Amino acid sequence: MPITANNPDRKTWIETTVNTDFPIQNIPFGVFLTRDDIITIGTRIGDTAIDLGALHQLGYFDGIPLTDDIFLQDSLNDFISDGKKTWRLVRNRIAEIFDAKNDALKNNEDHKKAVLFSLDEIEMQLPVSVGDYTDFYSSIEHATNVGTMFRGKENALMPNWLHLPVGYHGRSSSIIPSGIPIHRPQGQKLTNGATEPIFGPSRLVDFELEMAFITTDANALGEPIPIEEAEDYIFGLVLFNDWSARDIQKWEYVPLGPFLGKNFASSISPWIVTLDALEPYRTDGPKLLKEPLPYLQSTGKKSFDINLEVAIQPENEEETIVSESNFKYMYWNMSQQLAHHTINGCPVNSGDMMGSGTLSGPTPDSYGSMLELSWRGEKPVQLKSGGSRKFIEDNDTVIMRGYCEKSGVRIGFGEVSTKLLPIFKK
Amino acid sequence: MPITANNPDRKTWIETTVNTDFPIQNIPFGVFLTRDDIITIGTRIGDTAIDLGALHQLGYFDGIPLTDDIFLQDSLNDFISDGKKTWRLVRNRIAEIFDAKNDALKNNEDHKKAVLFSLDEIEMQLPVSVGDYTDFYSSIEHATNVGTMFRGKENALMPNWLHLPVGYHGRSSSIIPSGIPIHRPQGQKLTNGATEPIFGPSRLVDFELEMAFITTDANALGEPIPIEEAEDYIFGLVLFNDWSARDIQKWEYVPLGPFLGKNFASSISPWIVTLDALEPYRTDGPKLLKEPLPYLQSTGKKSFDINLEVAIQPENEEETIVSESNFKYMYWNMSQQLAHHTINGCPVNSGDMMGSGTLSGPTPDSYGSMLELSWRGEKPVQLKSGGSRKFIEDNDTVIMRGYCEKSGVRIGFGEVSTKLLPIFKK
Repeated sequence: MPITANNPDRKTWIETTVNTDFPIQNIPFGVFLTRDDIITIGTRIGDTAIDLGALHQLGYFDGIPLTDDIFLQDSLNDFISDGKKTWRLVRNRIAEIFDAKNDALKNNEDHKKAVLFSLDEIEMQLPVSVGDYTDFYSSIEHATNVGTMFRGKENALMPNWLHLPVGYHGRSSSIIPSGIPIHRPQGQKLTNGATEPIFGPSRLVDFELEMAFITTDANALGEPIPIEEAEDYIFGLVLFNDWSARDIQKWEYVPLGPFLGKNFASSISPWIVTLDALEPYRTDGPKLLKEPLPYLQSTGKKSFDINLEVAIQPENEEETIVSESNFKYMYWNMSQQLAHHTINGCPVNSGDMMGSGTLSGPTPDSYGSMLELSWRGEKPVQLKSGGSRKFIEDNDTVIMRGYCEKSGVRIGFGEVSTKLLPIFKK
Repeated sequence: MPITANNPDRKTWIETTVNTDFPIQNIPFGVFLTRDDIITIGTRIGDTAIDLGALHQLGYFDGIPLTDDIFLQDSLNDFISDGKKTWRLVRNRIAEIFDAKNDALKNNEDHKKAVLFSLDEIEMQLPVSVGDYTDFYSSIEHATNVGTMFRGKENALMPNWLHLPVGYHGRSSSIIPSGIPIHRPQGQKLTNGATEPIFGPSRLVDFELEMAFITTDANALGEPIPIEEAEDYIFGLVLFNDWSARDIQKWEYVPLGPFLGKNFASSISPWIVTLDALEPYRTDGPKLLKEPLPYLQSTGKKSFDINLEVAIQPENEEETIVSESNFKYMYWNMSQQLAHHTINGCPVNSGDMMGSGTLSGPTPDSYGSMLELSWRGEKPVQLKSGGSRKFIEDNDTVIMRGYCEKSGVRIGFGEVSTKLLPIFKK
């Protein structure tokens, strides 16, 4: 079935600006609270939010096999379970409804009143109920940088790294949407030269610039997903800030991996941009340095050219862009990650989230964490406001943005913005 | 509020055997499919399953603040969210309903027909929808044994182990109830002396004898749970077999921890025994070798005397008990685990599951995994049927059981029994 929603020549009757992340070719999916305090599934064109629950009740999705309440839910999980064909039918239909040549909704004031919202009338929620969250570690630059700092240059990349997409399980319960502030975490840490840990606020709070993909129900317990089918089970992507407390992480992570250094918060952008919408931006990933085992051999362009940036905004000051990177730097692509994750029969469900790992590029200005940008604090990052940062300070806001651009069409992710508050006090 | 359900002198009008795991003093909670293919929440006395949804509809829980459909659900999550006071009221009421001196239900044939089932009429399900699953590593004997094998005697226990309950995130989607068979997983492994991995079936499939506790909604993002309040948020415990593929695990686990070596399956016993029911079996845990930081200092008897055993049953042969251990060997108790898990503000929700880690005791016959029992395959374990095992073979069934006993009252967990099938073939 063609993805007619991607037609680059289509115009919409919704007012949009030239540089919007959300032209009619995007049509992402999210969940929001409306001005009437009703929770619904929606999409967005320009700065207009669209209530898909209301649109469906008014009959605009007639002919597409959807249950009556599929959009009147507090998560996209059931809609995602409907599968790729349904996602594509719905996205194509939305493009038609808002096409500049289509008057049906455009000229119906009552319907528009029920369906359209300005952004300040809604409150974005988590788009999915995350069953399981896995974080990969798939940027070779990030793994090399961190490995060098934690274990020395000769042990930087572990022997398994070039053979498989290293990953670990993260915590679903602390995944939050953009806009929710977090507290500086406390915990155990070992100061330099000490043999006994102390307790206190983390002094090395960091962001990690990642993206995450969201899956549909993919496989039963015991059945692997072949790599060539993997993309059928990917609904879309979000920006992902995998907050990290480096001092807590360093003390706790041997031998079973990161735990409290990570699970205090991970923030995501609230609009899921579909894999379909990203189709025009396919590109080759990095050349593999070793031939992988057959179950990890993927063909075709399985990477995506998505520009990414991170900004730090101290309280009441202007922001500084501290990193510019790209999703295409990811060494192991999403198909490889999903094939690897299920090769042992691990079941993947609707709403599961898989993080890319920190997306560091090859140059120092493209590193995806303060740990790398400030090289463990040795090279403070200068801010426009005159100050500098080794790590994130109280009341700083970290903002990540991402977009694709080609032939005059820009498909963006909006942003994930999170403020770091001081430690929690009762 | 007193836990009257624990009265050791109470008799029931339900027929039970002397050595049942489920006397009227137990009253565990589970979810099952009835003979009419209806899913309901239930309990069990002796070999009789009791439909709590039907009991509630018939008015037997009048006076307890419960929503009408609280037991007519496919998971215990909402009931668990109701909190400890409600759990206790319900359990006390169930004890009264089935007390030998109470004729109300006993003499009502219609009601009994709606409420009581024999075990062969029902099919046990997962008792909770597991949001997040965390596995701790809290047996000092297990950590020392495995550390010695993987890293040598001098690096067996990592420097952090005596300071914090080491834990990591596991996979919720592959937690299954007793009785569901699993397939031998495949994956990457490095054979001895090789530098490049090969792909194939795991040759070192192992069980891990664990218990897991199930929580209620405990805290908001950012707010730690003080250790003295931790038990208020623990609903109950199950037996937990954390299946492991040692060869896959060994190749993949550095630096981010176990992943595919674990997430192909974890099996649990289907009846959750409440913390209230375990109250009489409190005991001291092991003496701590180092004083922990204040947030991990617990007072009182926070451990439980639960006898555990593991049996291996080859196909069509009798079983052999290969390990006898006890929950009380756990070095870090559940209160410490929960206080540690949330000290950084990580939110804990209803239905979350926290594994103890392998519960190895001090003697070789109390080790909780084949890795330890056969000492990496060097000392095969003899079976009654004449064969021996280094690890688990195709079509073996692994059975774990657990019970407490004191003053003539035995509170048991039933069993978790899982058959290992050969590798999956399409």
